[in-house]
Order: sequence, then C-alpha cells, then structure tokens
Amino acid sequence: MPDQSPPPSLPPGSTIGILGGGQLGRMLALAAAELGLRAHIYAPEETSPAAEVASAATRAAYDDEAALIAFADTVDVVTYEFENVPGETARILSEHAPVRPGAKALMTSQDRLDEKNFLNALGIATAPFAAVDTLDDLKTALEKLGTPAVLKTRRLGYDGKGQVKIDQPDAAAAAFDAIAGAPAILEGFMPFEKEVSVIAARAQDGTSAAYDVGENVHRDHILHTTTVPAVIDPAIADNARAIAERIAHGLDYVGVIGVEFFVLNDGKQQTLCVNEFAPRVHNSGHWTSDACSVSQFEQHIRAVAGWPLGDPTRHCDAVMTNLIGTEVDDWQAHAHVSDRAIHLYGKHDARPGRKMGHITDLIHGFTKSE
Amino acid sequence: MPDQSPPPSLPPGSTIGILGGGQLGRMLALAAAELGLRAHIYAPEETSPAAEVASAATRAAYDDEAALIAFADTVDVVTYEFENVPGETARILSEHAPVRPGAKALMTSQDRLDEKNFLNALGIATAPFAAVDTLDDLKTALEKLGTPAVLKTRRLGYDGKGQVKIDQPDAAAAAFDAIAGAPAILEGFMPFEKEVSVIAARAQDGTSAAYDVGENVHRDHILHTTTVPAVIDPAIADNARAIAERIAHGLDYVGVIGVEFFVLNDGKQQTLCVNEFAPRVHNSGHWTSDACSVSQFEQHIRAVAGWPLGDPTRHCDAVMTNLIGTEVDDWQAHAHVSDRAIHLYGKHDARPGRKMGHITDLIHGFTKSE
Repeated sequence: MPDQSPPPSLPPGSTIGILGGGQLGRMLALAAAELGLRAHIYAPEETSPAAEVASAATRAAYDDEAALIAFADTVDVVTYEFENVPGETARILSEHAPVRPGAKALMTSQDRLDEKNFLNALGIATAPFAAVDTLDDLKTALEKLGTPAVLKTRRLGYDGKGQVKIDQPDAAAAAFDAIAGAPAILEGFMPFEKEVSVIAARAQDGTSAAYDVGENVHRDHILHTTTVPAVIDPAIADNARAIAERIAHGLDYVGVIGVEFFVLNDGKQQTLCVNEFAPRVHNSGHWTSDACSVSQFEQHIRAVAGWPLGDPTRHCDAVMTNLIGTEVDDWQAHAHVSDRAIHLYGKHDARPGRKMGHITDLIHGFTKSE
Repeated sequence: MPDQSPPPSLPPGSTIGILGGGQLGRMLALAAAELGLRAHIYAPEETSPAAEVASAATRAAYDDEAALIAFADTVDVVTYEFENVPGETARILSEHAPVRPGAKALMTSQDRLDEKNFLNALGIATAPFAAVDTLDDLKTALEKLGTPAVLKTRRLGYDGKGQVKIDQPDAAAAAFDAIAGAPAILEGFMPFEKEVSVIAARAQDGTSAAYDVGENVHRDHILHTTTVPAVIDPAIADNARAIAERIAHGLDYVGVIGVEFFVLNDGKQQTLCVNEFAPRVHNSGHWTSDACSVSQFEQHIRAVAGWPLGDPTRHCDAVMTNLIGTEVDDWQAHAHVSDRAIHLYGKHDARPGRKMGHITDLIHGFTKSE
C-alpha cells in the first residue's frame, strides 16, 4: 500500500495527458473517451495516430521544457505509451502534474541491469546476467555464463534492437563493436519452451488485478501472435500472474504493466523466469479489447485516473495477430471473417516492420486456464 | 438487392462525415477510429461530444450551403446521428458525397404518416391511425379509432415530445391546441404488454443482419433500460428480427436501423406491431458495445463504408441503463461494480432529461432467446 492516502478519483471531464502518439496512445485515448475523460496527446510528430482521436494535441519535442510545462498545466494526470521517456522529461512534468506510472517504474524499466537487480531483489527469477562496460567485462562474463549468450545494451532496446547473440567466445569483440561499446549486460541464453506474458494493473489504492496469461510467438523479433489462454501448467499460470502483481507492488506502481516470461522445461516440470517488463499497456494485451469487459487500455486509464480497477475476467478464448507492414492490405479479407475483430491504427505509410493494426479471433467455448 | 453494382469499400484512412455532434456521433467516431477510418463531425454547437474524439470538425448550421459543400467535398461518405436532417441539407450533401442511409429512409422516417403508410404497404402491422390536419379531422378520427388515442405531430417528435394522449372525445380541441394545429396523426392506443426493439443493419451489397431483440422500459418518456434477451415467445423474437430486416430492404437501406415494436397479448398469444423506426444507431442498441464482438456503431460504420457486416451474435445477456441528468453523478459507484461497463458522453452540463451516459451490466451465463 502507498504510504499516503490515495488521491481522489478524477471525475468525468478531466484530462489525461499522454506522452507518445502511436497506436498505444491512440487506444488509450479511445478508452478514456468511453469513460467521459478527455485525452491530450504530446508527441513530436506532425501527425500521429493518437492525436487524430484526442481532444487536444501538443506537437513538441520531449526536451522542450516550455511545451512540457504548458502541457502538464492543462492536464490532470500524465501517463505515457512508451517506457523510454527521458528522465528529465518525467522530472519536469512531475513538478506540474502527477506522472503515473511513477519515476521508479520508468527508471527501473529503462535499464536492463537495474531491472534485473530489482527483480532478483524481489526473489523473482531472471536469466543469469553480468554487467558489461568493457570488452574485458564481456570476456569475463562469457567465461562465467558460457555460450550461447546474448549481449544487450542496458538502455533503449526494443523489438530485438540493441541485441547481439554470441555463439562462440571468439565472437566477443565483434559483438561489442556491434553495440558500439554501449553500457550493456550479457545474459545467459535461456533455452525456453515458450514465451508468455501477463498484463497486470495496480490502482492508486494498492489493489491489483491480472489478466489471464497469453502465449506469445515472435517473428523477426516482433510479436506475431498472442494466444489466450497460454498452454501451460495451471500452477505456472497462477504463479505468472502473482509475479506480475508482485512486480507492480514492488514498484509502487499505478497503471497497467506488461510482464514477459520465459517458460523453461527441464523435461519434468515447467518453471518461469522474467524476461522483462514494460511500464505501459502492451502489445501482448491487445486481446483484452475484445475478450474482456474491461480492456487493458480502459484498465490503465482507470488506474491513472484513480478509479477502481475493472474486472479482468475474459469471456472467451482469443488469438491476437499483429498486422505488420503491408499485411494490413488484407483488411478487406479480415472484415469478412466472423468473430474476427479488426483494429487499424490510422497509419498512412505501411513501412516494413511497422505495426499497422491487429486482428483478434474470438473463440467461443471458453477454455479455463486455471 | 440494389440495382447498381455495389461501390467499392472505403479503405482505411478514408473519412466518414457525420452530421450531428451528440453521443451517437461520438460513439460512431470512436468505432470508425478502431477500423482505421477518420471521422469528420458537422454540428452547429461550439463544442460537441463527438467533435472531441473526431479527426476533424466543422461548426456550422445545417442550412449553411457553403459549409455543407466544403464538408461533403472532404469526406468519402456522409452519415448522420439523427433522423431529422432537413431534406434540403441531405439534397445538397448528396450532390457532393454519397449520403447513407439514403433519402428514402430519411424522408419516410421523418413523417409519421409516411412511415405508417410505408410499413402497411409492406404488410407490416402498425397501430391503427388516421391523418389529422384539422380539428374536424381529429373529431372524425376519434369516432373511428375511439379513446384512449394518441395525437402525434407528423414531424419532429422524439422522447415523448409532440404527443398528447386523448382519454375522452371532448378533449379533442385542447389536444389539437397543444400541438398548435401542426399536421398530425391520431393513433389508436395500443394496450401493449411490453415494448421491444431490434437493431438491424443492411450492407451495400444487400445483405442484412439483426441483433437479438431487446426489451425496453421507459421512464418519463425516455428510454430507461434495455434488457437482452427480451422475454417474449421465441417465434415472436424471430419475427421481430425478420420484420426489421424487411424494413431495411424496403428502404433500400445502408446502415443500422432501430425498429421499435409493441408486443400485444390477447391472453392467448403475443403479436407484434411496429411503433416506429429510426434510420440510425439507436439508444436501445447500446448494449451491443459490450455484449457483441461488433457493436451497432461499428456495424453502421462498416455498412456506410461499404464493408461487409459483422456478426451480430452476442456473447452474454445484458441490461443497459441510461444515466439521465444528475444520475451520472453516481459514476464512481458504478465503477466499483464488476461486469458493469461504463460509457460517459463527455457532456458538461447535466441538465434534467439529458442523456449523460449509460451503463451495461453483463450477465454471463447466456440465455438463448430463440
């Protein structure tokens, strides 16, 4: 529980400030609107998917102090759609409006070393890791963790960027060059059976809730599908949800958090370790828009606005599939399929690798996951 | 089937022009956004619930020809949230963009006499009625239809406005005065057991679909609750849906239509007669946002954009309750209830009788209505 009494709920008509103008900001703005709340998008791009559906928009850089202050002064709370909000940006904003989730979540999730140390301190398993600042550090870490292993920059990695797999110790120098000598960690390679994720939420009053576990398949390092429920041992599913809520409590978190896990299998039983978490709504939670009465987007808005959390129960099974690049051109075929919900993000340019939309197939005939 | 080949579907990025800035326009704009379509709201009010969430907004009067033309020229199709679009407005717009639903639906629904004649010509039962242009007409009609009866203006009535119940023949003159001698009809009073409604849709290719039948309870002449499924004979429910689709075909309709029925009961069996229809999304269809994978709002956008209709199947039972005037002040209590979806319209002033939002209670454990 937070040590201060919870602030009052923001009434309808209040304004949620959202940093970032992409599809996550867009779906947050749409969810806010359903609750009678206004959205004000802050993003540097000239046009953005989120600004198109928001009550207000500021176009400015994330280091434009005057614009940040003017923005924060007109909103009732600030949240964000991406974890790499610069620390100075968050600091400036927080002097003028509450920023939720707060600084601890942002700082911890922005640095892979801090994130793993935080998780381990909570007693939550991660891949084995070592900090790497020099080529010598890397060589020492490779001796300790063995190969294969993965060298990851501590900051600013996503969708497989800022990562190099090292298969042999003599590839160390090339890998260190590939990340341009940035502060990094080496992670022991996890021979995982599958990747799953949990979307959890924590309210300002300290209550928490977690959606059912989804099973994720990636393609070219980008999420391809999330299937709910994940096909895992029910006790493991329970544990994954409990861990996600434990992380939220440990961060004194307010909002939705996405936690990715590796499921390991030694041939006898499944175990979990946390890969990473994101202090925001998460691509692997998009299925909640169609399979639950309260989506992750509404849940996040409820939390940051000081409302009680909604019920995360789902009413059917679901498979979410991302539409990447020109895959969105098949929208017409998707529109013909029953029980296939279509979500398109209003982006004009279907560049390779760009998330243009997603579809969710709803499977009636519910499979209880636990 | 329409006699011309269907126009192509509007691709994502296209713009839906919406006349009217209220909650129906708002929910249409939100549904368009989920499909990657832009919404442009045309409304005379300075601020409007719909414009708050739309990509573009024009503030102008419905008789401002230059503004109407400029609006129509920037959108790919025009639709509307209210049936009383002036005929001249629709005519001007239709010279610059397709208007869906079309002129026949608008004209027929705007005049209670035309509406009843249209329905009867399709072989669909209505209350008995007679045209009333003079006090003598009214006296003659009262002799024919008896009392009680209801005098209704032919045009511009809604939520009980423009209606006078006549309990005794000698109240004729007072009733005629009460509607200021406007062209009217007298309707025989229907001692109905309950009121139900059907939300149906028809696509440009002539296919149609209907949601399950809802049972409506009014309070002070304003819709209070819609409960799905309606508790009626399954054959009657089938018939109600079939009638709604028949009306849509008869109007060569494109979009969502709301059809209100009286359910009569002579003690032996239930029968139906149509009260009226609205050529738009309908308050009694708000439950579809939470209990179906495709809401009435998405269904309407799909239809007017030339997309295939979605599946109207619902996944649970539902009770929708309107929040009228200061009832919206209870939003915080509603937010604590599980499986209660909250929809607030972003209106600032909770005037008596004003629709401020609605809640939908979802009842898992589906009751099959037919």
